[in-house]
Amino acid sequence: MKIALAQINTIIGDFEHNTKKMLQYIKEAEDKGADIIIFPELATTGYPPRDFLEFKDFINKAEESIERLKKASKNIAIVVGTPSKNPVIEGKDLYNSVVFLYGEKEIYRQHKTLLPTYDIFDEARYFEEASNWDIVEFKGKKIALTVCEDLWNLGNENPLYTVNPMDKMMRHNPDFIINVSASPFDYKHAKERIKVLKENVKAYNIPVFYVNHTGAQTDIIFDGGSLVINKNQKVVTELPYFEEKLEIIELEKIDGIQEEKTQPKEKIPLIKKALITGIRDYFGKIGFKSAVLGLSGGLDSAVTTVLAVEALGKENVRVLLMPSQFSSAHSVKDAEDLAKNLGMRYDIVPIKSIYEAYLTQLTPLFEGRPFDVTEENIQARIRGNLLMAISNKFGNILLNTTNKSEMAVGYGTLYGDLAGGISVIGDVYKTEIFELAKYINKEQEIIPVHTIIKPPSAELRPNQKDSDSLPDYDVLDPILRLYIEGQKGPDEIISMGYDEKLVNRILKMVNRNEFKRHQTAPVLRVSPKAFGMGRRMPIVAKYLE
Amino acid sequence: MKIALAQINTIIGDFEHNTKKMLQYIKEAEDKGADIIIFPELATTGYPPRDFLEFKDFINKAEESIERLKKASKNIAIVVGTPSKNPVIEGKDLYNSVVFLYGEKEIYRQHKTLLPTYDIFDEARYFEEASNWDIVEFKGKKIALTVCEDLWNLGNENPLYTVNPMDKMMRHNPDFIINVSASPFDYKHAKERIKVLKENVKAYNIPVFYVNHTGAQTDIIFDGGSLVINKNQKVVTELPYFEEKLEIIELEKIDGIQEEKTQPKEKIPLIKKALITGIRDYFGKIGFKSAVLGLSGGLDSAVTTVLAVEALGKENVRVLLMPSQFSSAHSVKDAEDLAKNLGMRYDIVPIKSIYEAYLTQLTPLFEGRPFDVTEENIQARIRGNLLMAISNKFGNILLNTTNKSEMAVGYGTLYGDLAGGISVIGDVYKTEIFELAKYINKEQEIIPVHTIIKPPSAELRPNQKDSDSLPDYDVLDPILRLYIEGQKGPDEIISMGYDEKLVNRILKMVNRNEFKRHQTAPVLRVSPKAFGMGRRMPIVAKYLE
Repeated sequence: MKIALAQINTIIGDFEHNTKKMLQYIKEAEDKGADIIIFPELATTGYPPRDFLEFKDFINKAEESIERLKKASKNIAIVVGTPSKNPVIEGKDLYNSVVFLYGEKEIYRQHKTLLPTYDIFDEARYFEEASNWDIVEFKGKKIALTVCEDLWNLGNENPLYTVNPMDKMMRHNPDFIINVSASPFDYKHAKERIKVLKENVKAYNIPVFYVNHTGAQTDIIFDGGSLVINKNQKVVTELPYFEEKLEIIELEKIDGIQEEKTQPKEKIPLIKKALITGIRDYFGKIGFKSAVLGLSGGLDSAVTTVLAVEALGKENVRVLLMPSQFSSAHSVKDAEDLAKNLGMRYDIVPIKSIYEAYLTQLTPLFEGRPFDVTEENIQARIRGNLLMAISNKFGNILLNTTNKSEMAVGYGTLYGDLAGGISVIGDVYKTEIFELAKYINKEQEIIPVHTIIKPPSAELRPNQKDSDSLPDYDVLDPILRLYIEGQKGPDEIISMGYDEKLVNRILKMVNRNEFKRHQTAPVLRVSPKAFGMGRRMPIVAKYLE
Repeated sequence: MKIALAQINTIIGDFEHNTKKMLQYIKEAEDKGADIIIFPELATTGYPPRDFLEFKDFINKAEESIERLKKASKNIAIVVGTPSKNPVIEGKDLYNSVVFLYGEKEIYRQHKTLLPTYDIFDEARYFEEASNWDIVEFKGKKIALTVCEDLWNLGNENPLYTVNPMDKMMRHNPDFIINVSASPFDYKHAKERIKVLKENVKAYNIPVFYVNHTGAQTDIIFDGGSLVINKNQKVVTELPYFEEKLEIIELEKIDGIQEEKTQPKEKIPLIKKALITGIRDYFGKIGFKSAVLGLSGGLDSAVTTVLAVEALGKENVRVLLMPSQFSSAHSVKDAEDLAKNLGMRYDIVPIKSIYEAYLTQLTPLFEGRPFDVTEENIQARIRGNLLMAISNKFGNILLNTTNKSEMAVGYGTLYGDLAGGISVIGDVYKTEIFELAKYINKEQEIIPVHTIIKPPSAELRPNQKDSDSLPDYDVLDPILRLYIEGQKGPDEIISMGYDEKLVNRILKMVNRNEFKRHQTAPVLRVSPKAFGMGRRMPIVAKYLE
């Protein structure tokens, strides 16, 4: 039996696009003699469709896609994720289902049992959990159909659910498991995924065929990495990361395989690929070609520019250098050097005259108060306005260049440097930005070395350094990581040896700046805990403040 | 038996503040001879605590609050909502519980069964549902303890849950129901709440004592309106809206009451009170006193100013008039008239010179392209920058003045007029703003009549009118309401008699502008479906576009 894994990149709500794409892969798989083709979770709608699921029209369109796929199932079985209506009045109106189509008929529909409702996931918002479990018999094989999280309640110290759907299905003695997934990337995830799937193989002693989405849906990036794991708990195939791919595996040939076929899983290269995918699909899926961003001479905008150029092409990335009277001579040179290294156009727009026009109007209102963060923010917002003007005039989307350390402590100006359509590196700590820069410069100096080695500065007042307001990043980042990713409270962090005053100061900064994060662009998610939908914090609160 | 309803206004995560407040009310109720005092759902933590619930430290602090309350329960029973740890490894780590304290002991803890996970609610994200149901016996009475949603699965055509916890508790023949709630305001909610509670009284034939939060938590506003409903399904008392209140009801005296004691529930006055509560608590709870906003001479900023003045006092609201060369003479006069009517300070800051400074720098980059939305946005963003400068220099929080119709179709400039710390009227359609303005002017002309009767305009280019870009608001708003509140798809709306082209155009505008709403301030929620956490839409998608 030949089983085709179809790791695809969908567009949320674009039923025509998603269905056509599946029909093409079905044809290709059929031509190559596949008996079954497997698509990811909610492949008809794209994932996550969020509250579009609450529209009957949306669900009807998904069902129309299934009707179209059904017609293509004459000679090949199609396994695909889609939402289903719940016919029972009580309970949620939908199920999250995997459908088995064959011979132009729907053979079976298995609903998802374990509905992830944590981090970025909201499935209990929409779906009722399965209360019925069966298997499909096809060409002499018994197949257990599962949806993503259904296999994720094994191998955790603290399981989130009290049932395992596979325990129910094992009564029917399935020969293998199919799992259709929408399992987003973070830099630890590919490894974790293999571990969890192996736990299932170990527990149930049958192979798993696992198909994941690839491509980015705004902030959520899917890496693909679809898998076949045989009874020996060996990875028979791992599909590439961040690419569409059709691969056909012969069921009968996987049993003996002892050698694992997996890909490298180094953190920084994975993050780089993920961010490029995130940029590329953000632009591609909303139908924009070109980006604009401000190049300060600093590291964050340099790294963002390199990523944007790799994602969109240098002809589609426009940079503005916007020096003020507080900019060092070096900054302009560093920025120019980067643009030259990348062979790209850049424009210099000094902001001094605009800044002075503001001060002329505002000075009477300022009642003689001294220079403070106000004047710093005015400059940052002038730059935001200039960049948005280019965005509006030429249709370039503004890329935000704020890193995760700054986002965390609120070191940035709302409507100024926090502006942008998408935050490229908002889930990458400053210390990781340094690693990313070194990785980018691995073979040649693309980012000027001076940009990397000079002390970080916002250059909004004379001789400013980040370290005037913030702890050094190699002190700050570990504490942020414990609080944000680790969800440790102050006592726990302090008990690990960190300075009490410092910890309390940092946690307070993080909490007090929730209002800024609430108004910033979606952040490309590459860590297990990114700012955005995956981290939902009150704005007005008094916890650790 | 004397039962005290304590309708309180908490601060999220401020355990000291919340506990002290409860201890004061406990003392007052005890002094007045109450046998039981009831506080709302999650009263220890404030509602909604969101992902703070994922921190062990936060849960420990809530449990410490319960310990302190326990010590106050020597002579009065205390019923209070708080999170509990789930001792079982499988399943979510927490329960959402109601605790019964008496004689310095914890007598019973009932977990919540029905966990709302829709609109603004995320309870399945944190909590395991109850699997055990008992009652409390106290001074000869049997009491069924429930938490909010536990009573909300009755009287709906489409119940969200398959069980009713009261069905389980009825086995023990309770004498009455206590319900601790966190049930947010919308302009239909107070009526709905009474209907649902009466359904429970009807089904179980025992009285209900219902205690709700009051006050605003950022965008979510609680109206209080706590209730006692007797066996005859009559409202014995309804506590005031948007106010803290302790009221003591004698159980033995409620049975015979036939006459209902309820408050008026007119939409516009309720919305006005809610918005004032929202502003007042936003400022009060983050410890800011004063607001700033731009006064354009138009209706939205006029209404927002009136509300802010009522919430904060005229001495704490500062307005800037920022005319450009495109502003009509009338605009400045209308804005000045409003400020004079309110007896408040205003400053005029013309933006022409700043605008020209931008154009001087940008013209070489614009390559001779004609005036378009770019130049309009530059003006809006100059105003945003000026307002934020006042905000930064003097610590006034910027109030956003965008209405719901504009938010819906994206008629506003990101980082310009869409800026602000809190969106005051972002859940109020333009047609409702007119009603609100009339209601404000009921007794005297506060908002200049000319502001109300002139055609709405952004005044960002010569002779601009909103109706150049948008359908008239009385055409637009009903369609928006069907799509946003009604969650109707295009076919359903068109079948109701609306023009097909118009419907498709409007729905497309709503969907395409999700990226703007993602970056705007929290919106004070007054309708059943507000922009924000209650409406979660993909940003990059192709549905109805």
